[in-house]
Amino acid sequence: MTDASPFRTAEQKEAERAAKRDAVLSAAARMFNERGFANTSLDDVAAQLGVSKRTIYHYYPTKDRVLLECLKKGLGQLLDAADEARSREGSGRDRLAYFLCRYAVITMDDFGRCVIRTGVEQLKSESMPEYREMKRGIDAAMGEFLHEAVKDGSVACENEKLAVFAMAGALNWPARWHDPDGALSKEEIAGQLVEFLMQGLSPRT
Amino acid sequence: MTDASPFRTAEQKEAERAAKRDAVLSAAARMFNERGFANTSLDDVAAQLGVSKRTIYHYYPTKDRVLLECLKKGLGQLLDAADEARSREGSGRDRLAYFLCRYAVITMDDFGRCVIRTGVEQLKSESMPEYREMKRGIDAAMGEFLHEAVKDGSVACENEKLAVFAMAGALNWPARWHDPDGALSKEEIAGQLVEFLMQGLSPRT
Repeated sequence: MTDASPFRTAEQKEAERAAKRDAVLSAAARMFNERGFANTSLDDVAAQLGVSKRTIYHYYPTKDRVLLECLKKGLGQLLDAADEARSREGSGRDRLAYFLCRYAVITMDDFGRCVIRTGVEQLKSESMPEYREMKRGIDAAMGEFLHEAVKDGSVACENEKLAVFAMAGALNWPARWHDPDGALSKEEIAGQLVEFLMQGLSPRT
Repeated sequence: MTDASPFRTAEQKEAERAAKRDAVLSAAARMFNERGFANTSLDDVAAQLGVSKRTIYHYYPTKDRVLLECLKKGLGQLLDAADEARSREGSGRDRLAYFLCRYAVITMDDFGRCVIRTGVEQLKSESMPEYREMKRGIDAAMGEFLHEAVKDGSVACENEKLAVFAMAGALNWPARWHDPDGALSKEEIAGQLVEFLMQGLSPRT
């Protein structure tokens, strides 16, 4: 513990700036998710945060840039989840199930939800390459976990590419309909979704 | 066969008007799907069809109205598929699988794709009730087919409500990524998706 000083250190100032940037992005992501990207202006975001437009523009010059940063946050969380899954013991199926559960939970959070809800078609073309590379990493991770699980025999799958799309589709869906005040928690929904993907609908005889 | 006459009958005129309305809606749905609703104007649709703006406005006064009609076309096709499924013989599972396959194929077509790709948040509030009622009918149909299949024991499912969302999510996904020029036909993709939902990923022992 250091004594409190009225003068902030360089570290404190940087931490404060980071906190402000995060607050801008969080507010923007929530507004994009709730009313749609096209229906949200940076002025709206400023009003929501109770700050001036100039404050927002100081951190992010354009709405496109704000969206890109929101998407990068969400995609970054998903890539972190893939790294966590890779480092886990157990069967390929265990790692796949872990990643799918984390994926579902993250895409019910603000930034992950933004990745799913705000179509990439909203992004300006200069922001595309950065987005696409991260997005590709996540699609590749899902395919990789599935493939490893098929290889070690802990999972059976005829068409892996199509299964990846189907899993992503099933898991992305809560980003559109999940009610944060609903009866089930994000983790419960994620768990049940993954169980559904693992078991399918056929009765086990 | 009647002799050709330079004077069109009332039926011919009505058929011609219907064909023109359909052409407007088809062109609009394709443009909404390709470049996004916000990025498409009725002027763009007119240009695409090689007609004047006034022609478009003669049929549809607003872009919202065009979207609503596109959505109603897609939703109508899905409701028809539910009716077809209901009239089929076989187990609950057979009817469920039939409906899911048709659902997937329709949502890869122009109007069905518009239902999935152009979020309901784009619709003006006065158009909502009509949209919502049709949409509810489709969600209800999927739930009904699943429930009947669970009841006759041809399908096993722990949480039917969540399974409906997961199935819809998995089946809606091709509306976003399906390439009409890809190796698999719509029907093949639909068949494999439904097989995946029925079997899940667990190896059968």
